[in-house]
Amino acid sequence: MAPFKLLISRVEALKTVLDSVRPVEKNESVPIEESSSRVLAEDVIADKDIPPFDRAAMDGYAVRAEDTYKASERNPAVLNLKAVLHAGESSETPLRKGECIRIATGCPIPLGVDAVVMVEFTEENEGKVSIFKAVHPGANVAPKGEDMKKGEAILKDGDTLTPAKVGVLAALGHRHVKVYQKPLVAIVPTGTEICEVGAELREGQVYDVNSYTLTSLLSENGALVTMSSIVPDSFEQLKSVITRFLDHDLIVFSGGSSVGERDILGKVIKESGRLLFHGVQIKPGKPTLFGLVRERPVFGMPGYPTSCLSNAYVFLVPAVRKMARLPHRELRTVRAKMAKKIVSASGREQLLPVKLVHGQVHPVFKASGDITSLAEADGYIILPVNLDVIEEGEEVTVALLE
Amino acid sequence: MAPFKLLISRVEALKTVLDSVRPVEKNESVPIEESSSRVLAEDVIADKDIPPFDRAAMDGYAVRAEDTYKASERNPAVLNLKAVLHAGESSETPLRKGECIRIATGCPIPLGVDAVVMVEFTEENEGKVSIFKAVHPGANVAPKGEDMKKGEAILKDGDTLTPAKVGVLAALGHRHVKVYQKPLVAIVPTGTEICEVGAELREGQVYDVNSYTLTSLLSENGALVTMSSIVPDSFEQLKSVITRFLDHDLIVFSGGSSVGERDILGKVIKESGRLLFHGVQIKPGKPTLFGLVRERPVFGMPGYPTSCLSNAYVFLVPAVRKMARLPHRELRTVRAKMAKKIVSASGREQLLPVKLVHGQVHPVFKASGDITSLAEADGYIILPVNLDVIEEGEEVTVALLE
Repeated sequence: MAPFKLLISRVEALKTVLDSVRPVEKNESVPIEESSSRVLAEDVIADKDIPPFDRAAMDGYAVRAEDTYKASERNPAVLNLKAVLHAGESSETPLRKGECIRIATGCPIPLGVDAVVMVEFTEENEGKVSIFKAVHPGANVAPKGEDMKKGEAILKDGDTLTPAKVGVLAALGHRHVKVYQKPLVAIVPTGTEICEVGAELREGQVYDVNSYTLTSLLSENGALVTMSSIVPDSFEQLKSVITRFLDHDLIVFSGGSSVGERDILGKVIKESGRLLFHGVQIKPGKPTLFGLVRERPVFGMPGYPTSCLSNAYVFLVPAVRKMARLPHRELRTVRAKMAKKIVSASGREQLLPVKLVHGQVHPVFKASGDITSLAEADGYIILPVNLDVIEEGEEVTVALLE
Repeated sequence: MAPFKLLISRVEALKTVLDSVRPVEKNESVPIEESSSRVLAEDVIADKDIPPFDRAAMDGYAVRAEDTYKASERNPAVLNLKAVLHAGESSETPLRKGECIRIATGCPIPLGVDAVVMVEFTEENEGKVSIFKAVHPGANVAPKGEDMKKGEAILKDGDTLTPAKVGVLAALGHRHVKVYQKPLVAIVPTGTEICEVGAELREGQVYDVNSYTLTSLLSENGALVTMSSIVPDSFEQLKSVITRFLDHDLIVFSGGSSVGERDILGKVIKESGRLLFHGVQIKPGKPTLFGLVRERPVFGMPGYPTSCLSNAYVFLVPAVRKMARLPHRELRTVRAKMAKKIVSASGREQLLPVKLVHGQVHPVFKASGDITSLAEADGYIILPVNLDVIEEGEEVTVALLE
């Protein structure tokens, strides 16, 4: 059992990870109603003007603007009602001087019309319409192409689709859209000390927690997860499972929390590829390792549930989001005062789960092996390597786990 | 065509909506790996101690603490190595004075052991282990029940599941979890002026944008959406579609942007239930209406895409989240300076889509009928009813559409 020798900093470790993972290249076609939060894999160019015709922007009366120039509250212009256009209807015959057409929002502007008077400024009575307000040419007319002009690039390759961007696709008549595939992530629990959830625990066993916390977290950050069954911590087994999952974009081992077991994975990666770091100056999370096998990124996460999950927020989420081409997302932070004094002397940067109670920061960390620490936490604070003490009442920055 | 008469404020409208919608009561069982972001519909009580046994919290040597009391860097205590426990292994025979057992993190603590010395402070050589540091009883031992005590309430009915809370369920061996069903939302596009996306547009038609923007937005906020086909704006058709969707928790009509068509829906609701408001003092979004039919909430959203979607952020998202029992979520806001002067004289509160460019706020609103306004926007600012002018350089609060 060789203890860790050289630890790298969290910042350096994250940089190594982000420099090593690549955005997915493969794309797929999905129905637009399932495309929100996905990443566009094509430029979207308007193939038509939207709207495709000049249209009424308001309910009201379609007029020749010049017929209204002298209209006022006291002296309305009185026009002859020539036709009525309900939503979805259009008119073929041109409007002549002194005439108007009752028109619904969205209807194509009839020939001869150059303005619409809002219904609020009119009064209709037996075929005559009083117009109480002068309008200029173009008033309340939405011109053809106002929203999108034919040939215009509207959305770009790499854009994350939002409800409004999905609306752009619908407006252009697209049923499907090309998006980047989600990165395929294999999550591999290791070690005979863990047991499939729901199976009967043998002496000395605990349930596999990490497969579920990692699957939940990474799925929410754009990954498509394959959950592997539990693999024993032997050189041959770990090697063969890496080979099996080389068709995935990322392989994440969890478990093998002990130094000896981590060493086996480290050796497998060294033999088959490159081990880029093993041991991070962070607490919890020291045993985290990372390497490349045939250019496929491979993580070894600490086995202890709180260590594993908090390091997943720090390293795996940014890695997966980069692979998924999703924008880097900083956790939302708040500043708040410590409810009690903290002394830290770990010689490592520390991720301390905390709860906010009446605006005060209470540490909720029990032990790395516990999951309730993080389940109760509202967020975490990062204690610097060189921290001596934080006094009660001192202000700290809490990164929120929302 | 009756113009609107009395408009209610956004705040009053939202209060009316939230007072009228009820959280879903029905629940369902889902696999825990699909439960993150869902809302727990049961209390979770630990049915066992976790961990189920005292265990080693570190890799190292299991000892009787008193055998180490005199150990130091210069004068190590030397103990006989009695056994080696790899991860997942346990030992039956008790430890005696002067002995130690090499132990991996997570292994059950053998009988007679009361502490673990971290491997870093030891040296093993031909069956002898030098201990360079004294430890107290309990050192590096995670006691049984440290994470969860049998009978303890760990998660509560109504908790939103997070990756860590899913981990709690896994730790307790639960394969499935009872969560509240997602509220069923029917989205019904209306009007012959809109066309199913992808079909051939007839003269005067545009594609149905709102079904897609609303489906995207509400699905992301906990709804299960049924997309209806397009329904003509007639009294009988609207009435029958409400009856058809009364098995849903919420019915949202979109379209019928003109005053006359909105009136039909208003009349249908008045006849079959209660119309709670029709006309909001907000721009865009004046035609928004809301009522109850047999206690089922029914929305009439403006037909214009930007009006519809921005009002969906304001009214539908809070309603759906309340129904889904998800916590109310304020949009994240930033303060930034206006890049240009804005004059507002609408007599209504205004939702103005804006883009942040080099930290400055640029309005991107084109027209309510456009969808690109919101597709380009980073967020919106709310201009108060009584606004006269915002000068260039004045600071405003931008609600971010992320």
